Amino acid sequence: MDLDTLKSLAIRAETKIVLLVLDGLGGLPRELGGATALEAAKTPHLDALAVQGVTGLVDPVGPGITPGSGPGHLSLFGYDPLKYQIGRGVLEALGIDLELTARDVAARGNFCTMDKTGRITDRRAGRISTELCVELSALLDTIQVEGIEVVVRPVKEHRFVVLFRGEGLSDQLSESDPQRVGEAPLKVEAKTPEAERATRLINTFVEKARSVLKDKHPANMILLRGFAKHPNLPTYQELYQLRAAAIAVYPMYRGLGKLAGMEALATGPTVREEFEVLRQHWQAYDFFYLHVKRTDSAGEDGNFQAKIDVIEEVDQEIPTLVTLGPDVLVITGDHSTPAALKAHSWHPVPILLSSRWCRPDGVQEFSERGCLQGGLGRFRGKEILPLALAHALRLTKFGA
Amino acid sequence: MDLDTLKSLAIRAETKIVLLVLDGLGGLPRELGGATALEAAKTPHLDALAVQGVTGLVDPVGPGITPGSGPGHLSLFGYDPLKYQIGRGVLEALGIDLELTARDVAARGNFCTMDKTGRITDRRAGRISTELCVELSALLDTIQVEGIEVVVRPVKEHRFVVLFRGEGLSDQLSESDPQRVGEAPLKVEAKTPEAERATRLINTFVEKARSVLKDKHPANMILLRGFAKHPNLPTYQELYQLRAAAIAVYPMYRGLGKLAGMEALATGPTVREEFEVLRQHWQAYDFFYLHVKRTDSAGEDGNFQAKIDVIEEVDQEIPTLVTLGPDVLVITGDHSTPAALKAHSWHPVPILLSSRWCRPDGVQEFSERGCLQGGLGRFRGKEILPLALAHALRLTKFGA
Repeated sequence: MDLDTLKSLAIRAETKIVLLVLDGLGGLPRELGGATALEAAKTPHLDALAVQGVTGLVDPVGPGITPGSGPGHLSLFGYDPLKYQIGRGVLEALGIDLELTARDVAARGNFCTMDKTGRITDRRAGRISTELCVELSALLDTIQVEGIEVVVRPVKEHRFVVLFRGEGLSDQLSESDPQRVGEAPLKVEAKTPEAERATRLINTFVEKARSVLKDKHPANMILLRGFAKHPNLPTYQELYQLRAAAIAVYPMYRGLGKLAGMEALATGPTVREEFEVLRQHWQAYDFFYLHVKRTDSAGEDGNFQAKIDVIEEVDQEIPTLVTLGPDVLVITGDHSTPAALKAHSWHPVPILLSSRWCRPDGVQEFSERGCLQGGLGRFRGKEILPLALAHALRLTKFGA
Repeated sequence: MDLDTLKSLAIRAETKIVLLVLDGLGGLPRELGGATALEAAKTPHLDALAVQGVTGLVDPVGPGITPGSGPGHLSLFGYDPLKYQIGRGVLEALGIDLELTARDVAARGNFCTMDKTGRITDRRAGRISTELCVELSALLDTIQVEGIEVVVRPVKEHRFVVLFRGEGLSDQLSESDPQRVGEAPLKVEAKTPEAERATRLINTFVEKARSVLKDKHPANMILLRGFAKHPNLPTYQELYQLRAAAIAVYPMYRGLGKLAGMEALATGPTVREEFEVLRQHWQAYDFFYLHVKRTDSAGEDGNFQAKIDVIEEVDQEIPTLVTLGPDVLVITGDHSTPAALKAHSWHPVPILLSSRWCRPDGVQEFSERGCLQGGLGRFRGKEILPLALAHALRLTKFGA
């Protein structure tokens, strides 16, 4: 269902929706024939919701496709991740809580080392310290380019973000990073005629950076890639008349929520604190996105037991959440992160939808195996939001 | 699969297909943990077909989308309901058995009350009697507008249908109903340049209606909305070389069948009479659409037991149907209508396909829970017809 049609069906209601995202939730058995982390975890409260609700398995992007956090979340938020793409520059900016406007082109930057002939000898400048990165980024931030504003902010070690802010800048630009040593940094080139002005301005910035950094060996040059504009998504307010809030510890996830028009609420770092923020703001919003990061981190670390522990920690918070009385509670992940793979994976993600208007499916526990029998079947991530809105009685009939 | 491709695959065969539609078939349990109406009904004959056939769950439009009867049926008939949309004016015309041609723009009309200053005081003219509506519609039907033919027919109380019949009329028109009292009726406006001629002619009709009705307070003016042309669907004959018949008690469903090129057969009002009509015409057609309305009416009324009763009534007719020896028998609904919601809903609809060429799926009963385990899985409504044609050996191989 396209967003325009969905928008035409959205109606106001007094109902509340919670989307609880356990990042990287899906997994694989630790050993052949064994249980996944979700299956091994003791989750009496999640299982009780599965009995009463309806379950299924989600492909965030498509079968066999391993989603990054950006597409994984866009899909959960109801945007087709193949249609709406968030460039790396924008994701990096979101990741350091940098406010983006519709006039910005964002890029991911690396400090690098260049020899006297102008060839790159280290694309990461020997991974300089974050302190030095902060200092050099501040230096780059003072560069003036006529006609635009330039904002440079440090990320970590050799990495920084730069925003080129001005009217009519295009992001259809080639990268300056040749992706290998022994070559000179590339000129940024325009992929379309509209991008020529941006090309000129950005190459000017790069040349100024070269002279500002000339005595800063090993960080005596920069490489830019992932040029991207703010995706300008239609917001939850515009599309569904939802006042939406994002509760997430990591800036990138708050930023993804903000792209959809969610208000990012301040929270402490623990799962319990995140749920407490939800409770405190219960009256003020119609839709809450609550993000738990550590299921994914545990998977990435290959730490099966840590993933179990985080899932059990979340399970303990479910009764508080249920007491608030959400009309629709959706629990899922933005992708799978099996500890066995130590990485995001393509495996479909378990989903649980609990509401007064579910058709029960006989599933007795929230697990990969349980969800395989679920009444929602196997479906694309972008269908989650229409389902949540429907169960919240927030969509009217299509056609007479 | 798009219709052009499907058409290129369709071949003649001596096989017969029956599409039995129990309107609003899908449901929800009456109480938490209980059975749905279809599960509670005693349906030995449907269950026997489920054992021998193959089952599944259908989303007529898409997950979370509640279909109106129009899109629900288009989808069952194999047309993408997002691509082919039937405007309200056309549905209203079908609903009173009014014959539409490709040259018509149809609109839904209301009689309304206007005060001396020309402002609307009641958009429904105090819900005048149907008798008065018949009389006033006959009066409007006498209006002459140069260059087109105008047909006005009463519906019920304050509602009527008007057809503007002529060459090259567009339906890209704004509505004359401001949708609130205290305002004057709006001029119909063209949404595209091609619609300007229709605008002029229709506004002329409205002005003439104003003078014809000026002494008929409270029904002294009309409001028009839902302008729509005949959707001109490619027919079953053109697409699949099928001689198709529609058996339905309510005019709207006969009309929907006619849009697909089906011949509407006269029938008495009971389920038994509808099946008797099917039996009588068995030799003359390749495809029969038989529509049972009262499953939906019972759901809309919130009458769980009445829905059970209608399902059991249909079950009693199954042996007669099976005796006729259809090569493919499809039994499903155009959407769900849970008595608990007293309305159409988004929940997927159970489907049963019985044929010599089914791959059995181990399902033992025709029910929401049974179909969840079915061999057809969960799929879109527009895929039903290709499946029916395939099992009737009426589709050839795609590609060499």
